[in-house]
Amino acid sequence: MPADEFSLIARYFSAYGRGDAVELGVGDDCAILSLRPGERLATSVDTAVEGVHFPDFTLPEDTAYRAVAAAASDLAAMGARPLGMTLALTLPEADELFLHSFSQGLGLAASDFALPLVGGDTTRGPLTVTVQVFGALPAHQALLRGGAQVGDELYVSGTLGDAAGGLALLRGEWHSDESSEAFLEGRFHRPTPRLLLGQQLLGLASAAIDISDGLLADAGHIAAASGVRLRIDPGRLPLSPALLTHSDREQVLYWALSGGDDYELCFTLPPGMELPPGCARIGEVLAGEGVECPGAPALGGYRHF
Amino acid sequence: MPADEFSLIARYFSAYGRGDAVELGVGDDCAILSLRPGERLATSVDTAVEGVHFPDFTLPEDTAYRAVAAAASDLAAMGARPLGMTLALTLPEADELFLHSFSQGLGLAASDFALPLVGGDTTRGPLTVTVQVFGALPAHQALLRGGAQVGDELYVSGTLGDAAGGLALLRGEWHSDESSEAFLEGRFHRPTPRLLLGQQLLGLASAAIDISDGLLADAGHIAAASGVRLRIDPGRLPLSPALLTHSDREQVLYWALSGGDDYELCFTLPPGMELPPGCARIGEVLAGEGVECPGAPALGGYRHF
Repeated sequence: MPADEFSLIARYFSAYGRGDAVELGVGDDCAILSLRPGERLATSVDTAVEGVHFPDFTLPEDTAYRAVAAAASDLAAMGARPLGMTLALTLPEADELFLHSFSQGLGLAASDFALPLVGGDTTRGPLTVTVQVFGALPAHQALLRGGAQVGDELYVSGTLGDAAGGLALLRGEWHSDESSEAFLEGRFHRPTPRLLLGQQLLGLASAAIDISDGLLADAGHIAAASGVRLRIDPGRLPLSPALLTHSDREQVLYWALSGGDDYELCFTLPPGMELPPGCARIGEVLAGEGVECPGAPALGGYRHF
Repeated sequence: MPADEFSLIARYFSAYGRGDAVELGVGDDCAILSLRPGERLATSVDTAVEGVHFPDFTLPEDTAYRAVAAAASDLAAMGARPLGMTLALTLPEADELFLHSFSQGLGLAASDFALPLVGGDTTRGPLTVTVQVFGALPAHQALLRGGAQVGDELYVSGTLGDAAGGLALLRGEWHSDESSEAFLEGRFHRPTPRLLLGQQLLGLASAAIDISDGLLADAGHIAAASGVRLRIDPGRLPLSPALLTHSDREQVLYWALSGGDDYELCFTLPPGMELPPGCARIGEVLAGEGVECPGAPALGGYRHF
């Protein structure tokens, strides 16, 4: 790593590197993380490209926060305990204002999600943010996509469609009252990965995934991996009062089913389990394949290509 | 991960995912890797951007191989045993010819360096390749940059300057005989991270780094982290017969001292140790700071910004 690049990283990001699992952070050829005896490493990588994954009007601090939240959400979906992260940041130029704002959002996310920054690489090029997260899993437990059984019940955390509604607000495609706009735009810019819920579901949920590409698309991954059919009752979808300020109920349903970026968890539990706090039962697991949502607009999730 | 994207990855990269440490590879929210009892995780990330880190005439298979080699070299520099890697690939379009060639190089590198591909993310945008590598370190050992002691001796593996000489050949800046050109261009496109040497140096070397930005720059990191001065004897730099076909000795010395991308190891050993195979003693560790190379052209390493 060249001296200038190192000093950039050191100056802006070095405050966010402390954590229980961090034996060695930024500054050598590798970072070193420790696991507790018997634990396994869970890891995932997520890339956000300007203009593709976030609008070019996004504040750097929101870009950073959202990139970390998206990656952390994959740890939540596995039930993993967060250990740390690395950042691969490609920038058109070494812009101090950008780096200052970006590092604020990164630091906030590092703190909110218990993910100390243990390493990184900064390179010159079009703005691209790649976050790799590391988590710990107990020896014999993990939330996988493939364990849903016929007869299980289908759940989601939080409320759905808020991020898509917030993005539409940011684009000026509709308007609501001030507090609803603030809530929905916050749900887009500052999503909350369900890290604690994921860990609580370990050993209970038969399957889980996080909702990054839209409920229908992501539930479809559970259906495919588990070899089952999921039936979603559109009347049970949890919707926020803020989103319900939109006058078109069909548009709201579309966002809840197909809008990405909510970073809520979608999971299955055996029948008769207690409802986890902050969650809603939205359907059931049937024999067959695919996802059905009787009475809802038929639409797919977000696709990059 | 959208369905199309998943099927792209699955089709091209799924063959490279098997390894002893891989409990769960591509296809769920996270990959799961296992360490042996007492081991710690070493990890590093490396981004290559087209036009910045590799010329736009580079074959996709060479781009992939070189990106993995560069990241693996950080594991070598820590003395870590390779466990696996993830790939964050940003592509202008889902080009099947590109993906086919790229995946060939990736598969070869995965096999050569024992780094199964356990996860990834593909996104649309300017060509950017980010490789995160994972390795295992014993409980109380690691090759760090900061342990060089006054009186230690300075070593490098392999030969230096070959990649820079090879890049100059590829750009048509000079010419040599056919076999020398093939050797030097291969050293640029297909570097060999010194993974086995790194593990052999654990517990022996007092400091180590890999040479990615040029010997002077990278030795400078050892000097700074260890609080010592390094003296390099330019007459002892190991130079390949292929590089020595260049008529200008000063240019050759420049490449050996300041050309990046060799991915050899630079390390220090206490005095009187046996010379590790394939290595050369090039200098010594003195009190003071910085790197001196009496009689050599005064030049810095490669800088991104």
